[in-house]
Amino acid sequence: MYKLIKRDGNAKRGEFHTVHGVIQTPVFMNVGTAAAIKGAVSTEDLQQIGTQVELSNTYHLHVRPGDQVVKKMGGLHKFMVWDKPILTDSGGFQVFSLAGLRKIKEEGVYFNSHVDGRKIFMGPEQSMQIQSNLASTIAMAFDECPSSVAEKEYVQRSVERTTRWLHRCKDEMARLNSLPDTINQHQMLFGINQGAIYEDIRIEHAQQIRELDLDGYAVGGLAVGESHEEMYRILDAVVPELPVDKPTYLMGVGTPANILEAVDRGVDFFDCVYPSRNGRHGHVYTNHGKLNLFNAKYELDPKPIEEGCQCPACRHYSRAYIRHLLKAKEMLGMRLCVLHNLYFYNHLMEEIRDAIEAGNYKAFKKEKLSGFENNA
Amino acid sequence: MYKLIKRDGNAKRGEFHTVHGVIQTPVFMNVGTAAAIKGAVSTEDLQQIGTQVELSNTYHLHVRPGDQVVKKMGGLHKFMVWDKPILTDSGGFQVFSLAGLRKIKEEGVYFNSHVDGRKIFMGPEQSMQIQSNLASTIAMAFDECPSSVAEKEYVQRSVERTTRWLHRCKDEMARLNSLPDTINQHQMLFGINQGAIYEDIRIEHAQQIRELDLDGYAVGGLAVGESHEEMYRILDAVVPELPVDKPTYLMGVGTPANILEAVDRGVDFFDCVYPSRNGRHGHVYTNHGKLNLFNAKYELDPKPIEEGCQCPACRHYSRAYIRHLLKAKEMLGMRLCVLHNLYFYNHLMEEIRDAIEAGNYKAFKKEKLSGFENNA
Repeated sequence: MYKLIKRDGNAKRGEFHTVHGVIQTPVFMNVGTAAAIKGAVSTEDLQQIGTQVELSNTYHLHVRPGDQVVKKMGGLHKFMVWDKPILTDSGGFQVFSLAGLRKIKEEGVYFNSHVDGRKIFMGPEQSMQIQSNLASTIAMAFDECPSSVAEKEYVQRSVERTTRWLHRCKDEMARLNSLPDTINQHQMLFGINQGAIYEDIRIEHAQQIRELDLDGYAVGGLAVGESHEEMYRILDAVVPELPVDKPTYLMGVGTPANILEAVDRGVDFFDCVYPSRNGRHGHVYTNHGKLNLFNAKYELDPKPIEEGCQCPACRHYSRAYIRHLLKAKEMLGMRLCVLHNLYFYNHLMEEIRDAIEAGNYKAFKKEKLSGFENNA
Repeated sequence: MYKLIKRDGNAKRGEFHTVHGVIQTPVFMNVGTAAAIKGAVSTEDLQQIGTQVELSNTYHLHVRPGDQVVKKMGGLHKFMVWDKPILTDSGGFQVFSLAGLRKIKEEGVYFNSHVDGRKIFMGPEQSMQIQSNLASTIAMAFDECPSSVAEKEYVQRSVERTTRWLHRCKDEMARLNSLPDTINQHQMLFGINQGAIYEDIRIEHAQQIRELDLDGYAVGGLAVGESHEEMYRILDAVVPELPVDKPTYLMGVGTPANILEAVDRGVDFFDCVYPSRNGRHGHVYTNHGKLNLFNAKYELDPKPIEEGCQCPACRHYSRAYIRHLLKAKEMLGMRLCVLHNLYFYNHLMEEIRDAIEAGNYKAFKKEKLSGFENNA
């Protein structure tokens, strides 16, 4: 159940109630692809860095360790020891981007596993079944994510099929939630808007899927090659067509600046691999731009990554020490940078929520964006 | 200052007072080669797993980030944020095992860096100067560690040079400790007994170096290829020749069984890379033998690595989850195994101290050894 607490322009400040607790929005979900955040970050660590929602990947977990294993272990929450909300994606995006040779049919997608090459079939029903086995809080609908440079005619046909798949997802999820051995019988389902960069397709699709009265709606297929301006243009067009009294999730986005802009357009759920991936490469976020800790100028720098930051890295360690760890290829260096970056994102969302509540989101956004551009 | 609290047979229960606090012995020092424990373990983590002493490698830190950098950052304690004792080795072992082309002369060793190939010279004075810059609690003397299969004549000449080097180390350490800009003016120096597997050379060397009245004495050059029985034979011969009222340190040893046997022969300082290296490969210690968590039989095992263990891994996570992380090459899997193994070693030393205090060390050792042989 989503409760809209406050609007400031188009920005939404909400509360999303789930069986695993309340999510304060706007929220950034921390990506733990294979039931773990890359960079040696445990779910115990997540409790310390302000994580509200963990996101895991259906495709990866289906391939390894297998969703049946996770089900036998009591579901993802018990497996990875995390009692707060978990969102699982549908597997669709990985099927289209990672898997080998694939064939898209009306019934679903035939493809080869990227781990061992074995043939797998995944359609709407299979995706729901796997996500039901994983027992996440929120399941995502199985969709096709067409390339942002795909021909309009292809995108039109793809989106129509995605709509038909969404009906099948909804039916299958209802059936699974009614089974006695289903771990989470309150599993929620979010639909996904597609349509590449074609506003008319996007809008028509949004109008169709909002009729299904799902638990939330995502905008998919952005941040996959188009410019930031195109992304904002699509959001301007499509977010108003999605229900304001439901979560609005922009999948796979993005930079802190992207998030600030998307919140201003009514988005309140985000996820992205940037903070963990950049952290593993020694690139860390601050309110004055990103730092590359490999840079020689940090060799003798006794300051934390960001002064005043309360993350586990900044509370103890200097830029000089973390730089040394990165140069010496010590895993601890990556871990500290990832912890910092995730904390930075989670903390940014907290500031965003405060600004919306205070009714000064536009001013807040402007100030933050100008800080990021400083590039210390 | 070393205080012998209790003897039980030859086993010593002591307290070693340093400027960075008291070390309860027998103690296992946790190896953090490049000022960090491999496996993404921070000094904050060390506080939680019962670590008393951290050990860093002089050669590695001299090469990267450079001991001058560490000195400018206020010494190792400040650099890595650890206020308890640190022992640094002399660099000798790495020079002889890691470095490229090398030439041993009376003045010291000429060799090439293993990182960038640049020529480096290290003799007793240089080793002391580097360790003084690092500002560890305990410095180790610069020695040659001859191969356990070296000819007796070579070992004899090598040990004589090591003795001459030890005098130079002592003089240089005294000079450095008196300089006004030395960070730790109370830096201690341990001498190292050598002699490969030749008992007569070992004994004569021990008798010579004990005359120097150093802060502690190590037995070096063992666990480098000889059998466990040969190692115990050498310890039986040489430990009684070292001062009982000083720490006795067996360098680079070893398995839990090795430690139990060496304690029984009067050794009370240990260090070894086994727990961290094995942990990174998914091999974990328990009181019923070592487990290989890659083994398929742990796929659905909900138990912790060891029932009742209070380490950060066992308090939360199952064998099944850790196995999944290892298989998926998630760094978190390595981290949890390393934390468990270091905790296991540190906790074993605590049990050893309790058994000596209770005066039942022999019975305790027998029981522990039979448990390890179970191999669960």
